[in-house]
Amino acid sequence: MTKRIVIIGGGFGGLYAAKTLAKTAASITIVDRRNYHLFQPLLYQVATAALNPSDIAAPIRAVLRKQKNASVIMGDVQTIDLEKRIVTMADGELAYDILIVATGATHSYFNHPEWEANAPGLKTIEDALEIRRRVLRAFEAAERETDPERQRAWLTFVIVGAGPTGVELAGALSEIARQTMLRDFRRINPTSARVILVEGKERVLPPYPPPLSAKAADQLRTLGVEVVTNAQVTRINDHEVCIGDTTIPTRTILWAAGVQASPIAKSLGVPLDRAGRVLVEPDLSIPGHPEVFVIGDLAAVTNDDGSLVPGVAPAAIQEGIHTAENIARLLNYQPPLPFRYRDKGSLATIGRAAGVADFGRLKLSGFIAWAAWLAIHIFFLIGFRNRVLVILQWAWAYLTYQRGARLITGKTEPLMKE
Amino acid sequence: MTKRIVIIGGGFGGLYAAKTLAKTAASITIVDRRNYHLFQPLLYQVATAALNPSDIAAPIRAVLRKQKNASVIMGDVQTIDLEKRIVTMADGELAYDILIVATGATHSYFNHPEWEANAPGLKTIEDALEIRRRVLRAFEAAERETDPERQRAWLTFVIVGAGPTGVELAGALSEIARQTMLRDFRRINPTSARVILVEGKERVLPPYPPPLSAKAADQLRTLGVEVVTNAQVTRINDHEVCIGDTTIPTRTILWAAGVQASPIAKSLGVPLDRAGRVLVEPDLSIPGHPEVFVIGDLAAVTNDDGSLVPGVAPAAIQEGIHTAENIARLLNYQPPLPFRYRDKGSLATIGRAAGVADFGRLKLSGFIAWAAWLAIHIFFLIGFRNRVLVILQWAWAYLTYQRGARLITGKTEPLMKE
Repeated sequence: MTKRIVIIGGGFGGLYAAKTLAKTAASITIVDRRNYHLFQPLLYQVATAALNPSDIAAPIRAVLRKQKNASVIMGDVQTIDLEKRIVTMADGELAYDILIVATGATHSYFNHPEWEANAPGLKTIEDALEIRRRVLRAFEAAERETDPERQRAWLTFVIVGAGPTGVELAGALSEIARQTMLRDFRRINPTSARVILVEGKERVLPPYPPPLSAKAADQLRTLGVEVVTNAQVTRINDHEVCIGDTTIPTRTILWAAGVQASPIAKSLGVPLDRAGRVLVEPDLSIPGHPEVFVIGDLAAVTNDDGSLVPGVAPAAIQEGIHTAENIARLLNYQPPLPFRYRDKGSLATIGRAAGVADFGRLKLSGFIAWAAWLAIHIFFLIGFRNRVLVILQWAWAYLTYQRGARLITGKTEPLMKE
Repeated sequence: MTKRIVIIGGGFGGLYAAKTLAKTAASITIVDRRNYHLFQPLLYQVATAALNPSDIAAPIRAVLRKQKNASVIMGDVQTIDLEKRIVTMADGELAYDILIVATGATHSYFNHPEWEANAPGLKTIEDALEIRRRVLRAFEAAERETDPERQRAWLTFVIVGAGPTGVELAGALSEIARQTMLRDFRRINPTSARVILVEGKERVLPPYPPPLSAKAADQLRTLGVEVVTNAQVTRINDHEVCIGDTTIPTRTILWAAGVQASPIAKSLGVPLDRAGRVLVEPDLSIPGHPEVFVIGDLAAVTNDDGSLVPGVAPAAIQEGIHTAENIARLLNYQPPLPFRYRDKGSLATIGRAAGVADFGRLKLSGFIAWAAWLAIHIFFLIGFRNRVLVILQWAWAYLTYQRGARLITGKTEPLMKE
């Protein structure tokens, strides 16, 4: 009988696993609660009004259209029954012979879930549109506000966490204030906006080599970002953030810190790490269940030197491909091979024509790092159409300093109410 | 003292009025509850996943950036006090010397407001995204449904109202089912979807000459749309629509009928027509208040032959420009001139390479009408960037039969729950 392979999650890990399994005789079902694959590395560009949601997303079933052994269903998986080999969704069940769990992670508020309402994170398209709404509304409210102190609070933006997402958000926000909005207002001066980037560790981009962190901090400061390191957030509410003993009045706080694995990991009943990630075997299967694999941000995978494989798209892609190859081996009664992460380097942009890149011995910063980032992200963007549209919008933005998606959509509520 | 001109609404009427007033010495404030001008004639393309919201919207303050006598504020106007000459927003007030009210209209449910939840209309970007969500989810739910009758209901789409919006929606939905989705599903055959267009009057596109209505109906049928005329909707709920005595099981009903003026008209205390539109004077001012003008879909403007000026973008634009010119005359102590609508023709598309156009003696249908529609809509689209992106996306869609914005965003809820 044809083996039933179920893949939960259509992110980088799940999608590359499904594609790599095209040649096997198995029947593959990919289940996701969204109908699209999201190119998460560019999500901050939606949050900062540079790109449209559909520029960085592609329907999973359109991506897998030609793969006859794959079917796609939209469903929200709640639990996994390892004994009965059944995946339970909110509204149905799926039986499997082999399972890949790739449901990813979200941000963690370090035991302060109440902070989320006033400091949204950036993991989904809805998150990105909510951040875009808050940022653009803050400038509109500042234009209407007559009290200088309150105006100041509307024009203060605080980003918590200086990993790649935080750095990219801070750079983009500063550009919006200093360039995009430059001549659009009559009462406020958008260039007076403060963008404050707060990091708990001693430098920005902690996973990068210290010299690149220093260069990133320099480039951020050149863009007008205030960089605050070694600083803990102690309170967040709807009109201020406390960093250590300092209180900053602000109406816009963005959260780019912490990692919390998808809650589905718990239903597996296997050991998890502190962030809720599954401690997988060397072949990415789970203890006692060689037919169940966990990949991507949901998996805690250890390198030979004891360090953790980072939660980035290239790692998820490698894990997806490796797992698909292991499944092909299993179907041929061959033993699985252990996974080895090949670190091809890290890249982060810091606004217009600035960035840092770490390719092992080759370390870049400034324009050339930004150009490398551009080329690589366009190359990996799924879909020819998306590539063309993204290139065009970036070219337009680069030449005009404008951003094309400056729409305040979603909830409507009075700007000036307390 | 500089005269204060307040314009409520940044649609076609308000925006063209503001631009035409650039040369006057007055100070202009344009207030809108949105931060963007929406190119409403293309909204159905967002609802049917062909374009992105920001392709058809531009920030009002970016459009008016260089016009030094204009400022833009985001605010939701609730009432107008004609005696005190004050406009009251949800969160503040604006004083005026001269006022232009251009808040437009929405759809009317003909005394059945309870139908709205199950038959959303199409006036805002949020409406368009909600329609897109429902249409795309219906195909996903049909793929998961095992009961053939329920599957049939998920694959039945009913559009109420066969004006231009209804006709355009019906044509686009039929194309989605027959072309875009063609090879994307494994269990359902998307081409078996029914698209039913219901019209109360005796023919589709009632304002067009009868021969063009007949051609439009032919083109719709060629696309697979079932056209039902002389038919009244008598009941709508979450699983069916009743048309006369016939009950059609369906999970997706779209509303494209009726016109209801913005409720702000009532606060003027002047005579309104049945749809709530303001019965304006020949110069578009309101009775007894030569300093207050009502334009666009909010105004009931009568042609010399007694017919009503249609609620279309070209009429709103002409009214906006005419009112701005009248205001310049008022500021020079000259009497205002009466408004005369110059009908330049009507155009509607019916999907890929089909449409009808009525330019008086010149009547077109099929490919040439569609090409005219394309050229005119691109020409009038606000912003160079939007034009380029829309052309590209249309070209891509034309060549590949694909639609770029096939994302189910917004509310997440189980697909298969009752």
